[in-house]
Amino acid sequence: MTRRLAILAGEGELPRLLQEAREDAVYVTFAGVDARPPEDARHLAASFERLGALFADLHREGVGEVVFAGAMRRPALDPARFDATMHALAPRLMQAMGRGDDTLLRLVASVFEEQGFRVVGAHEIRPELVLGAGTLIGPAPGAGDLEDADHAEKVIAALSPLDVGQGAVVAGGQVMGIETLQGTDAMLRFVAETPASLWRKRGVLVKRPKAGQDLRFDMPAIGPATLRAAAAANLAGVVVAAGEVLVLDQPKLAVICRECGLFLLAR
Amino acid sequence: MTRRLAILAGEGELPRLLQEAREDAVYVTFAGVDARPPEDARHLAASFERLGALFADLHREGVGEVVFAGAMRRPALDPARFDATMHALAPRLMQAMGRGDDTLLRLVASVFEEQGFRVVGAHEIRPELVLGAGTLIGPAPGAGDLEDADHAEKVIAALSPLDVGQGAVVAGGQVMGIETLQGTDAMLRFVAETPASLWRKRGVLVKRPKAGQDLRFDMPAIGPATLRAAAAANLAGVVVAAGEVLVLDQPKLAVICRECGLFLLAR
Repeated sequence: MTRRLAILAGEGELPRLLQEAREDAVYVTFAGVDARPPEDARHLAASFERLGALFADLHREGVGEVVFAGAMRRPALDPARFDATMHALAPRLMQAMGRGDDTLLRLVASVFEEQGFRVVGAHEIRPELVLGAGTLIGPAPGAGDLEDADHAEKVIAALSPLDVGQGAVVAGGQVMGIETLQGTDAMLRFVAETPASLWRKRGVLVKRPKAGQDLRFDMPAIGPATLRAAAAANLAGVVVAAGEVLVLDQPKLAVICRECGLFLLAR
Repeated sequence: MTRRLAILAGEGELPRLLQEAREDAVYVTFAGVDARPPEDARHLAASFERLGALFADLHREGVGEVVFAGAMRRPALDPARFDATMHALAPRLMQAMGRGDDTLLRLVASVFEEQGFRVVGAHEIRPELVLGAGTLIGPAPGAGDLEDADHAEKVIAALSPLDVGQGAVVAGGQVMGIETLQGTDAMLRFVAETPASLWRKRGVLVKRPKAGQDLRFDMPAIGPATLRAAAAANLAGVVVAAGEVLVLDQPKLAVICRECGLFLLAR
């Protein structure tokens, strides 16, 4: 028997999409994160400084599993506001914050697990949010596009051990953008600003998880904004890892692909 | 006995700096490259489409060694204008152009060598343009800055086999920028635009050659513009590989470091 789900809501559409699928879920928002609860959801307002209070609330609500949903930036923590649980966690947290996001997220997940919660991925709640291998929306990619995608995948794989890179743009064999902390849309704006004299071919954006990434958090995601930014950057298409990238608002994506002549391929 | 040098002039200050050191050098500019010859230099106007003509001119001038100096973007070649030498080279060139810059530059160097020219690096003409290990200009970097530099060096090393990356910015353990085709200054502008909410620490720019890079061409370089862009991106300092990065206009760099509180370290 599945126990009640808590959605730890970050930014974007994903938390609401999960709420639609699990109407009895508890919807948790954090102070400082831009996420509003749906009107009819059971809502808990939480703070990263008082995780002990959150754990108590979740147990009281009968929550057995939690999902991290949507972008959640590193919070600025005020130790003066820590509850006892956070004071106990502080040494481990401080250590993890000096490293990459992966380390920090893994720690946060462990902490939830130590409290008896199962941590699940968004794609386990709504499996239709990922695309199966071979799914193609829009025109077929050319051989050069697939070579560019191969190269971008190698870039992402090479950076995986360093906790960076879920996205890269390659055009005609040349690397034009590598995703860093600022995210995919910022990278695509950067690529769009490339002087015309440096362009030879249209490019391809690849989004995929880092090698060995735990898909239960910080799963790569694309949506209509990503595709519009890709079109603005004069790309030929987008390649996502089948089963491992959240693809939001698929009907709208199909429209954008048709309008802009972009392909979207899962492989 | 040293035979005459030809400076194959790209953009920036470097070609002139080499000319100062070797006044009898032949100064070669290419159609489509923004490089003006110094007034008193022996000047040859060349075109990438007519390398055969250039080789003949260089031999006539008694040139025995050549240096590729300054940024030279991939030219748009018009096969209709090729001379016989270029027609013979075309198959190898076309193949190399589909790959990264390294492959292409290595081929171009081989072609010059096959014609009997020795290809030398700018740092061989003016050794004072690189910094020795331990050189520090400006304030001493903190331990966190050195850790950020370590991480940025790992990013560059990881990308080396993929023919990308001579520069990276890391701040507080987080990768904020990775240099791609657009160059260091474009990356620093991108980093400068990072929303304040994502910043925790000042960052460090690392410039170093790719692992195994042939320093005779596309040697990484920094100058006053780089340091000003680093200051505008709120960085704490810049770390360059000792002996392997051209550091131009060093007196001005010292002034900028003092004015902006930046460090510049070679290691």
